[in-house]
Amino acid sequence: MSQGKRIVLAARPVGEPKPSDFRLEEFAVPTPGPGEVLLRTIWLSLDPYMRGRMSEGPSYAAPVPVGGVMEGEAVSEVAASNNPDFAVGDIVRIRSGWQTHAISNGKGLIKVDPKLGPISTSIGVLGMPGMTAYTGLLDIGKPQPGETVVVAGASGAVGSAVGQIARIKGARAVGIAGAKLKDACPKGIDVYFENVGGAVFEAVFPLLNPFARVPVCGLIAHYNDTEAKPPKWAASLMRATLTKRLTFRGFIVSDFAARHGDFLRDMSTWVREGKVKYKEFVTEGLESAPGAFIGLLKGANFGKQLVRVGPDKA
Amino acid sequence: MSQGKRIVLAARPVGEPKPSDFRLEEFAVPTPGPGEVLLRTIWLSLDPYMRGRMSEGPSYAAPVPVGGVMEGEAVSEVAASNNPDFAVGDIVRIRSGWQTHAISNGKGLIKVDPKLGPISTSIGVLGMPGMTAYTGLLDIGKPQPGETVVVAGASGAVGSAVGQIARIKGARAVGIAGAKLKDACPKGIDVYFENVGGAVFEAVFPLLNPFARVPVCGLIAHYNDTEAKPPKWAASLMRATLTKRLTFRGFIVSDFAARHGDFLRDMSTWVREGKVKYKEFVTEGLESAPGAFIGLLKGANFGKQLVRVGPDKA
Repeated sequence: MSQGKRIVLAARPVGEPKPSDFRLEEFAVPTPGPGEVLLRTIWLSLDPYMRGRMSEGPSYAAPVPVGGVMEGEAVSEVAASNNPDFAVGDIVRIRSGWQTHAISNGKGLIKVDPKLGPISTSIGVLGMPGMTAYTGLLDIGKPQPGETVVVAGASGAVGSAVGQIARIKGARAVGIAGAKLKDACPKGIDVYFENVGGAVFEAVFPLLNPFARVPVCGLIAHYNDTEAKPPKWAASLMRATLTKRLTFRGFIVSDFAARHGDFLRDMSTWVREGKVKYKEFVTEGLESAPGAFIGLLKGANFGKQLVRVGPDKA
Repeated sequence: MSQGKRIVLAARPVGEPKPSDFRLEEFAVPTPGPGEVLLRTIWLSLDPYMRGRMSEGPSYAAPVPVGGVMEGEAVSEVAASNNPDFAVGDIVRIRSGWQTHAISNGKGLIKVDPKLGPISTSIGVLGMPGMTAYTGLLDIGKPQPGETVVVAGASGAVGSAVGQIARIKGARAVGIAGAKLKDACPKGIDVYFENVGGAVFEAVFPLLNPFARVPVCGLIAHYNDTEAKPPKWAASLMRATLTKRLTFRGFIVSDFAARHGDFLRDMSTWVREGKVKYKEFVTEGLESAPGAFIGLLKGANFGKQLVRVGPDKA
């Protein structure tokens, strides 16, 4: 029986996660029971939301228990199957976490169509990050031709897709990568896709135009905060919301599940036509995941952060 | 030539307006020129937004200049007409301000249909305050049957209509009139119609349910603020917006001008059927307007604040 590897949450981080908050474990790769399949992980996605799962406290999902496998979405190959819906060699995506192998009864297992693009894109530009960009920008931000769309975290998987979709829709896209925001937005900001918070939002706030829309997708600048501090605009936020008729709306991609067909049709077309380009930032081996994740929270990645857990073909 | 009266802004208030910030003036009632009508004010509406017009600084409308007539909407009778579209005796509404008489070229002059209700309702439950409640609640708040709708300022013209429309739509309406909000909302809050701010919002904020909607219509608790202070929830507002997928959206009734036909049809039906009841809080004589307005900002009114400027028939 071969050995598998997994990374578990060793301790709840205080502030920034440290390598010692994670622990690598080995386990005997299990044999699938009746109706089950054995999955071999090829790609693991690392995403900022995972920081939330490492802490207790109110969020939109339950935390990972201490000692539990870190959560995450993977692209995997069916290595053995007792389930008539899945054949050995099928490529699937599944929330199987930070591990080399997993057992599934088929629930939550989604076949990946390799014709749509490289299989890694099913957890990137054609997956959750791409769909987060698509729904947040189009269904909440609603960019109009000629409007100015500002996106924070423009080098990440979500942010880079937001900017490109904004351009497809005829808007001006401004990625935030430093100061000079006012110079870059001489006509103000109509849509601000918020996935950072902190100093970035403080720079954006006074530039928001009347009727501006702010999809609130993430607040990566705050995920390591140990105490909440009021931002400098706090006292005037509600006032500006009223006088400028702003919309702030938090969302999670699963809120827009009904849009998945639209998303996949549009985004795969845009990728094929070269209108949306994507970058992947790959580290090698499951052991690299904790370090890569710590870097991700600091913005060290350019493009979608992926871990190559296993080869395409076993 | 008869004498008219008007109330002008004598000085920009610092904090709460004082009687000396207003000044009563007399003027010779003018004669209408070609295409013009002379209007005799019957009812003047007093509304919280007027506080904003008394100050300089960013808002959604220009301030009243010092020495200028205070702004406001009135129900008036056409007293003389050189305009073929309006006959002597017609009842109209117009933003003619705090004065007994005004000249109009017909622009912005809207005929009131007395069949829809008493003419005073055209600046109350069937006018701007009623439509503010209707559009803010239905188009932004979108209450669903069984949901809990909380409205601040429930005794005012807008708030009382919000609560009644919420009930028509099958939601539970909770008016805020003191503490015990948590007891009154055992299943949390799905829609919070914000027209107060301050301590009221601080009580509401932790009770907001996932996917709660907050139409931001007014912030009367802050209109007399001389400096902005961050509210106690400031540090967690964006975080909660994300994790609870909240929507905050500022609006002004004119943003929903396209909904006026729907509003007037529904609201006049509801009033006629007794499903929406309204209260009027009347003070007598134009001279009473400054005192009534100062009281309005303190919540001294129960129902729509009106000033009886002249008799129904001259």
